[in-house]
Amino acid sequence: MKIALIQKRYASSKKRTVKKTVKDISIAAKAGAKLIVLQELHQNEYFCQSEDVKFFDYASSWEKDIVFWGEVAQENAIVLVTSLFERRAAGLYHNTAVVFETDGTVAGKYRKMHIPDDPGFYEKFYFSPGDLGFEPIETSVGKLGVLICWDQWYPEAARLMTLRGAEILIYPTAIGWFDEDSKKEKKRQLDAWITIQRSHAIANGIPVLSCNRVGFEKDSSGVLDGIRFWGNSFVCDAQGEMIAHAGKKETILYATLDRKRTKEVRDIWPFLRDRRIESYQDLLKRYCD
Amino acid sequence: MKIALIQKRYASSKKRTVKKTVKDISIAAKAGAKLIVLQELHQNEYFCQSEDVKFFDYASSWEKDIVFWGEVAQENAIVLVTSLFERRAAGLYHNTAVVFETDGTVAGKYRKMHIPDDPGFYEKFYFSPGDLGFEPIETSVGKLGVLICWDQWYPEAARLMTLRGAEILIYPTAIGWFDEDSKKEKKRQLDAWITIQRSHAIANGIPVLSCNRVGFEKDSSGVLDGIRFWGNSFVCDAQGEMIAHAGKKETILYATLDRKRTKEVRDIWPFLRDRRIESYQDLLKRYCD
Repeated sequence: MKIALIQKRYASSKKRTVKKTVKDISIAAKAGAKLIVLQELHQNEYFCQSEDVKFFDYASSWEKDIVFWGEVAQENAIVLVTSLFERRAAGLYHNTAVVFETDGTVAGKYRKMHIPDDPGFYEKFYFSPGDLGFEPIETSVGKLGVLICWDQWYPEAARLMTLRGAEILIYPTAIGWFDEDSKKEKKRQLDAWITIQRSHAIANGIPVLSCNRVGFEKDSSGVLDGIRFWGNSFVCDAQGEMIAHAGKKETILYATLDRKRTKEVRDIWPFLRDRRIESYQDLLKRYCD
Repeated sequence: MKIALIQKRYASSKKRTVKKTVKDISIAAKAGAKLIVLQELHQNEYFCQSEDVKFFDYASSWEKDIVFWGEVAQENAIVLVTSLFERRAAGLYHNTAVVFETDGTVAGKYRKMHIPDDPGFYEKFYFSPGDLGFEPIETSVGKLGVLICWDQWYPEAARLMTLRGAEILIYPTAIGWFDEDSKKEKKRQLDAWITIQRSHAIANGIPVLSCNRVGFEKDSSGVLDGIRFWGNSFVCDAQGEMIAHAGKKETILYATLDRKRTKEVRDIWPFLRDRRIESYQDLLKRYCD
């Protein structure tokens, strides 16, 4: 199965950004991609760089956004993984991935479970932690274990999706560097980000798709300079082998997934067989003190 | 703190192998190593390549082995992580890491929890799964999260050791290639092995020490050709950065661990803060079907 990740920069307005993204989806679909993944919060700039109530307005289009992206999926006859700002009630918002079927219907949604809060990434201000659990989304191209950004650092999330039958792990994400960090620190961060996600493929015998944004986005509050999103979207197979890897430019990244590979890899390295589930209780604790 | 991993080949008898290992320990201790780690089942050949009751005799020296390695630790005034074949009762054996204090006393032991069983690695025949849980061992050089080989593929094991306060993860291991595998497959396997262990460092903000054996060992049963142990022992820091990495030859691999680094890394990337423990219950299931 051919898939595509669309790695883009924010094009200074929602309208322009969405237009460019839709064009890329059309190109990817024509090139044969059956599953297309967009980056985290792909309609807007990464507004979580500062805490400002004005940005909640971005979620006011939630219902319309769903109609819009459903039509895009239908027009291109693809399964589409989007990442939207969900308005659930006044003062209650989520960072939500909505997956659309080839006929434009909603196949399912995932509300980001692990919410970061670090300088420049003030997501706990904007998003209530997800309450839909780690549930793969059944689609015509397979059961998709959709997770979002910060989730990628948690082996628990990847494992739970796998135990529930996910066939592919998918991470829309928005991560980058601060320009003031040293070259070495930047390398370490990017390397850690790739390594942890490849490790989920390895631990679970499942392919991983990670779609990140690119470009520099200023911190509108002026507290920090801004974030230089590092791109590097990638696809690795069920053994963690890189099969496609983007650079730091806007890209449509294609890969072909081999469904048989997951079975082969899991039969050679049957890690799920030997888990010591009777000794894992403390995983449900914050810390053992 | 300076540490050393001793990566060795089996020297055709226990006597010769132990003699060479003791010599290396002495060299490493003189070079200033305070913590020395040996590879998995370092006294003997990797006998699990075939299933033969004769090999249970190797465990008959269990009590003597403990006395012996305790003396080695004391003579060199180091904390020593050994990997021994434990005879617990007739017909009941474990793959057990014994950690010795600088005065030669036993600081603690860890019985391998995840037991593999694959062609050439018939460990389920020899070893009963550990029943001491994932408990770090308190020593004068810190709380050591000692795990063994197959455990390295399980994020659960690394996480549990971390939640229980481990300051370093340590993996004595014995893993290698079959000569008949392609060059590409060998690369994928080695790469996956390094990646998954570095990921434990990253997910948990904790340094990882992995000590593997080298050299070719024939399958004495003649069913398979044998295993070419791939060495590549390594040390990575709390962010997963490689700070020492051996090749495929016998080596004493030195590294210096910086205790402050763990705190720094965990404060920058506070993954433990955001775990969704109320949604992790299914980690205690074999599979969710």
